Amino acid sequence: MAQAVRHDAMRARNLALVLGEVNSRGSVTRAALAEITGLTKTTVSKLVADLIDAGLVVETGAVRDGERGRPGVVVRVSGEHVASVGLEINVDYLAVRVVDLSRTVRLRRTQAVDNRFAQPGDVVALLRNLALKAVDDAVDMGLRVVGGVLAVPGPVDQRTGTVHNAPNLGWRDVPVAALLELPFPVQVENEANLAALGELWFGSGLSDFLHVSGEIGIGAGLVVRGRLFQGSHGFAGELGHVVVSPDGPACRCGGRGCLEQYASQDALASATGLTPAANPHTTGAQAAATAGNGTQAPTTGNGTRGGAITGSGAQASPGGTTAGDISRIVARLEAEDPAALAACERAGWALGVALSSAINLVDPDTIVLGGIYGPLFPWIGEAVTATLTSRLGQMRDAVPPVVVSRLGTEAAALGAAGQVIQRVIADPAALLQT
Amino acid sequence: MAQAVRHDAMRARNLALVLGEVNSRGSVTRAALAEITGLTKTTVSKLVADLIDAGLVVETGAVRDGERGRPGVVVRVSGEHVASVGLEINVDYLAVRVVDLSRTVRLRRTQAVDNRFAQPGDVVALLRNLALKAVDDAVDMGLRVVGGVLAVPGPVDQRTGTVHNAPNLGWRDVPVAALLELPFPVQVENEANLAALGELWFGSGLSDFLHVSGEIGIGAGLVVRGRLFQGSHGFAGELGHVVVSPDGPACRCGGRGCLEQYASQDALASATGLTPAANPHTTGAQAAATAGNGTQAPTTGNGTRGGAITGSGAQASPGGTTAGDISRIVARLEAEDPAALAACERAGWALGVALSSAINLVDPDTIVLGGIYGPLFPWIGEAVTATLTSRLGQMRDAVPPVVVSRLGTEAAALGAAGQVIQRVIADPAALLQT
Repeated sequence: MAQAVRHDAMRARNLALVLGEVNSRGSVTRAALAEITGLTKTTVSKLVADLIDAGLVVETGAVRDGERGRPGVVVRVSGEHVASVGLEINVDYLAVRVVDLSRTVRLRRTQAVDNRFAQPGDVVALLRNLALKAVDDAVDMGLRVVGGVLAVPGPVDQRTGTVHNAPNLGWRDVPVAALLELPFPVQVENEANLAALGELWFGSGLSDFLHVSGEIGIGAGLVVRGRLFQGSHGFAGELGHVVVSPDGPACRCGGRGCLEQYASQDALASATGLTPAANPHTTGAQAAATAGNGTQAPTTGNGTRGGAITGSGAQASPGGTTAGDISRIVARLEAEDPAALAACERAGWALGVALSSAINLVDPDTIVLGGIYGPLFPWIGEAVTATLTSRLGQMRDAVPPVVVSRLGTEAAALGAAGQVIQRVIADPAALLQT
Repeated sequence: MAQAVRHDAMRARNLALVLGEVNSRGSVTRAALAEITGLTKTTVSKLVADLIDAGLVVETGAVRDGERGRPGVVVRVSGEHVASVGLEINVDYLAVRVVDLSRTVRLRRTQAVDNRFAQPGDVVALLRNLALKAVDDAVDMGLRVVGGVLAVPGPVDQRTGTVHNAPNLGWRDVPVAALLELPFPVQVENEANLAALGELWFGSGLSDFLHVSGEIGIGAGLVVRGRLFQGSHGFAGELGHVVVSPDGPACRCGGRGCLEQYASQDALASATGLTPAANPHTTGAQAAATAGNGTQAPTTGNGTRGGAITGSGAQASPGGTTAGDISRIVARLEAEDPAALAACERAGWALGVALSSAINLVDPDTIVLGGIYGPLFPWIGEAVTATLTSRLGQMRDAVPPVVVSRLGTEAAALGAAGQVIQRVIADPAALLQT
């Protein structure tokens, strides 16, 4: 009995060792795997066979690098069977992404809504509907969804899947994981942390950065040497509530002059002279609109929001939606509207002030601006860099470079899906047992 | 040859394994060591004998716990042979601490100076003199100093031992490790980081906290699950340059309204109406005054600084010196001087603003106020907590508790000495080879 337990533990460890090497190397022969891991060729062959049976890896006849160009059989991670779902509840959209084990995005579903006036139960029901349809479509593609992670804009108790406090949603102690009731395990995590992981796994290829997630709220995720820093209780990265001006406008968090009062989507819209659209929350109409594969339909004209579904298959362009307000702000900026330009100047300055505090505290290598700062970058980037240079230039040889994320608002949902993939790679045996 | 190398590596690993267990358990029998490590009793006995020969552990006949009270021989870390030196260059004092391998502080030397007007070479010569005398005294106590770490108030290139930029010293790119020329290896590290490690190893026993190091400058060190967070380049923790008010007073760093402009020793002295003493830097007189074991002589009356040496053997009270200005401020506070009370109120508010940003960004479990905030805590603590509660109370169930460090301004020098001890414990074989 004790021996059997020990054997199982060793097999689990070796499966993870082999799959980890295949994953990090892209493709590798069985002989090379034996050499790298120190396992016998017989053991490697048996482990690879088990991983093939579980649909986690495939063998392909490929031409290996080398002068002779001899064809050889290599093992690589399979994108054909196992998949994960990344889910996101944000203030003005819901998002679902299906990613396969080779980290290819296979399905994108985004729905513009306004969750500020909605009951948590209604929001979750809408997301559940969107997720189940995506899972059905994934099944049609031959994929098996093994787990999900849900991104929410606020601190989360990861043990219980409860949203502790999401001031921009008006949520407090909402047991969102329990409400969601999907046919696979779902963990709940902070949107800003997952967006940083999305950037790490699906973005620019950097491994040391502070990712700023601009939405209705503003969060950040710090990645140091490829690992997310989460603080003592998992609540790190609340950049939106870093103080820009201690006597500034009152903030939803209870403080004053927080970054969100200067650089959030609402602050920008308001300073541009755009009043957020009135939002009677009509979940019924929106839920009906989720059927079918809609095409990208950002609402750029008149502030009408809700009901638009974007994205379809793996070929959809990255970036997902940006909320209607941002498209309207961008339109004003392109027309060189003075109020819009001044709003971006002020937001860029405030971001620079908050980031100079963040750089002094956590010393990131690079600043990656994501979310709404993607489309706004041409009008906001310079003010951020100029503020950082004036505040930090004398202390440092070089101010951290400020770059723009290519992922836009889909970073968090991708990071969520990616985290499930990471868990499968780290412990494939858990999947083989089910 | 290859086998000999492999044997050496295995022996080094096993020596570290045994010493690590002895260190973490306090005292332990050879039989228990064999059981814990999985090594044979013969191997353990040989390793313990080597560690005894090197003076790293001792065997003592002790009464073991248990009903029969049988006497047994236990192994514990020896405090009688190997020691480390913690050094500190700060703006208004130099400090040397000798700590033995059992983490008992054996010697304390502190010298009040004013390094703001001094050449780096003169400052280093003064510290070298202080250190060599302390090492001589340690030798007289039968101790062998195996290494040192030097704490400096600013970011450091740890590879080269160069102080990158210490604005409060006026230092830029000073190769301080090379200048110091002590008869043992010395590494150079940031004062605020080492103060946090001092708190971890010699302080309150917490393992998750943000330690605030109040001096002429203000730094911080974040410890998460017993490990120091250093950021991407080792420059994290510059709390003194977190923005309190973006258009506030100009700061030495190039920014405006940084925390140091409200809550540093100079800011407090100035707001209290105390002008910092004029300081012709007379290193000759100060160097002469380092001879002998002086007694604690803080300059409380007239602002004369320099030349005072404090501390002596292991029995000296913790806390070291506080600079003259702080003693004068405390005297005013005890006399309920309105300007001094207002200065502390304002400093406490500013600390609360900066710490609310820090808590939002890095999520520490507890805030530990050290350095000058030790003696000032009765007048500053409430304002800090009140500001944190008003700014964070709505977002969080509980605001992190704010506690005072017992170590005062000696935290950094103790952390420096402790870091050498950590390295010896982690790799005793390196010491056995020398």
